[in-house]
Amino acid sequence: MALTDLRCMNSQSTGKNMNWMSARAKGVSASAIREILKVTEKPGVISLAGGLPSPILFPVAQVKSALARLMQAVPEACLQYGPTEGVLELREWVARAHATADHPLSAENVLITTGSQQALDLLGKAFIDPGDRVLLENPTYLGAIQALALYQPKFEVLPECGGRIDVGSLAREGTRAKLAYLIPNFQNPTGRLMDLETREALVQYSREHGLLLVEDDPYGEIQFEAHSLPALRSLCPHQTVYLGSFSKLIAPGLRVGYVVADPAVIRTLTLLKQSADLHTPSLNQRLVLALLEAGVYAQQVEAVRQHYARQCEHMVAAIRECFPAEVRFVAPRGGMFVWCELPTTVNTTELLAETVRHQVAFVPGEYFYVQSPKTNALRLSFATTPPDKIRSAIQVLGRLITQRMVSASSFGWQCEPVTR
Amino acid sequence: MALTDLRCMNSQSTGKNMNWMSARAKGVSASAIREILKVTEKPGVISLAGGLPSPILFPVAQVKSALARLMQAVPEACLQYGPTEGVLELREWVARAHATADHPLSAENVLITTGSQQALDLLGKAFIDPGDRVLLENPTYLGAIQALALYQPKFEVLPECGGRIDVGSLAREGTRAKLAYLIPNFQNPTGRLMDLETREALVQYSREHGLLLVEDDPYGEIQFEAHSLPALRSLCPHQTVYLGSFSKLIAPGLRVGYVVADPAVIRTLTLLKQSADLHTPSLNQRLVLALLEAGVYAQQVEAVRQHYARQCEHMVAAIRECFPAEVRFVAPRGGMFVWCELPTTVNTTELLAETVRHQVAFVPGEYFYVQSPKTNALRLSFATTPPDKIRSAIQVLGRLITQRMVSASSFGWQCEPVTR
Repeated sequence: MALTDLRCMNSQSTGKNMNWMSARAKGVSASAIREILKVTEKPGVISLAGGLPSPILFPVAQVKSALARLMQAVPEACLQYGPTEGVLELREWVARAHATADHPLSAENVLITTGSQQALDLLGKAFIDPGDRVLLENPTYLGAIQALALYQPKFEVLPECGGRIDVGSLAREGTRAKLAYLIPNFQNPTGRLMDLETREALVQYSREHGLLLVEDDPYGEIQFEAHSLPALRSLCPHQTVYLGSFSKLIAPGLRVGYVVADPAVIRTLTLLKQSADLHTPSLNQRLVLALLEAGVYAQQVEAVRQHYARQCEHMVAAIRECFPAEVRFVAPRGGMFVWCELPTTVNTTELLAETVRHQVAFVPGEYFYVQSPKTNALRLSFATTPPDKIRSAIQVLGRLITQRMVSASSFGWQCEPVTR
Repeated sequence: MALTDLRCMNSQSTGKNMNWMSARAKGVSASAIREILKVTEKPGVISLAGGLPSPILFPVAQVKSALARLMQAVPEACLQYGPTEGVLELREWVARAHATADHPLSAENVLITTGSQQALDLLGKAFIDPGDRVLLENPTYLGAIQALALYQPKFEVLPECGGRIDVGSLAREGTRAKLAYLIPNFQNPTGRLMDLETREALVQYSREHGLLLVEDDPYGEIQFEAHSLPALRSLCPHQTVYLGSFSKLIAPGLRVGYVVADPAVIRTLTLLKQSADLHTPSLNQRLVLALLEAGVYAQQVEAVRQHYARQCEHMVAAIRECFPAEVRFVAPRGGMFVWCELPTTVNTTELLAETVRHQVAFVPGEYFYVQSPKTNALRLSFATTPPDKIRSAIQVLGRLITQRMVSASSFGWQCEPVTR
């Protein structure tokens, strides 16, 4: 039999790919945001859409010299396989950073992950059986929705009142949820900061009902004014799985994140991580460790806070000036995003199609919801765009929003009464 | 309510961790090999157990200068988020490397993964529903068994005859398997090379029965004598998912691997990878690309082949000299491992306990099986141990194997008749 006889024909197998797919994979579709971001990456477009940290904050010189030092001092440790748990000294640094007087931590409490996105996948694997109920803020981080959805949970939405999670209502209505996924600090996409009362009530509820709290905290350090709100983890260490990341403070392209949790949880996640990618790249972990040891982290926290605070100020000022008074938003106290709710007559996905023609992009809010999406919301990132471009983009947006509102009301539609 | 009131007590939640676990996670246990490797990492132990590539082959100087160049020329590209599919130029390099005259490839056929271990996890996610049948060689790579097992397939074992996969028997007996996982080149753990006839028969069978072939090929380039055996992928490109890796040729600590498959498969795997870790670290992909562009890959292939061929020769010579004639093995033609089958009276897990006391370690064969494990087999790695230590280790092993055989026969047990 000749080799050529064995070769499959193009026409033969294209359709088969789908037959092989798991039910899980058939349910996965291209993220709408991904498609949107592709459009917004066109040259000339001012994009307030992306979630990228500002590259001008990357500690390039320090990375360069740290890499040179590492390749001189410990090349083998950077290039060889390493333990699944992560580099011991890095785990110890994380443990020290998150320990409190009442709850000391050790490396046993820490797993290094390939970005905190990986932690979300491992948590889905570890905790979610099909049909398990998972509580989410609505809207929330799309990457978490997608990662957890693969394990086929039933999503439930945390009740809200006045823009805050309403734990009283949760307690009255009850839930059979096993875990709650939360971003207490400068949430993506809403930018909101969970207040102390809500944190305490959530922890109290979780303790009483055995609810596991997943606390995703990529933005916690990016606070524009000092606050002393405790991490859920520090309030309830044995029932919280905390996800941290060096992406926003050092550099996302290194893909180094971590989980802080009880040792038993860490052991399970470690076994699952072993199957997922053996370990997070040794080079990247050593690099982050070298930067931490050189004091770069503290410098970065300071630089990132100052820069993003200024960026945010520019955006908020421009919004106040250029957006119609009917647009509701809360000036963020940290993070990377401003969330706006427009009159309900304005569909922000339609608005985007128009603003892109005027070279301005954002993310329509509806893609961040697991249910009852608001079609009149939008997320703006102030992280990477220079102030003058933020201003021009907000001007364009303001003009087009106003036009749509006028056009809607001239067709006889009624704007919902809103307050600023 | 005071914060201290909210703090969970240690005693309260330790047991709850297990209640939260998914059925999937409850089924995962610490890998026996991992535990074994911990024992064998004690100072003074000559370990033939690990699967680590030799660090003396790492291209340290080239990595060092490539990193310096990258941080000078494209620091932002190395440190910023990147596309989930991987860096375009790296995907194009892989496509060129694996294209054939009959089957050209483009970047659309390639996904960069965080080591090829990640590809195994993504394939499980993409293709395996609970109860789906998956064909495996028995024994096979433990990391594949563990990664795929998380998706709850039913494993079936490929029939064998005379140490080769018996496709005739597979065809006669039939299988409802959806995919087959194979390591055709210098398999882990057996070191065997699949012959042309078996490759052709497997591909023919797969075409007729719609079986998806997963071809894991970390060792394909580590061949000690040139051979021209075609990849399954080249024989049946539309029905094969090919997994490649830079771990054994450049450095495993970078965690850069890749998948070559039909674009439809790549698109699905890309969506799943997005949830798994967003993308493989930008720095690591750029580094591998820079090394490829500097011609380091071809140099490495040559150096790795020569070095491992010599190492293998030393080990095979020592085995021929020091092991009792009853031990069966085939001298490998590539890869990193020698597989030995001892008389059935010798249990190699028990043997290991004894050899470790004599400062020598290996991996007992039984851990590589999904069913009917051979308790009398062992895997030896010749990759990292210097020749004189290989020799002393094999001497110790030979002595202790002989003692066990003698002791077994003096107790009246019968050795199975074996041929060398």
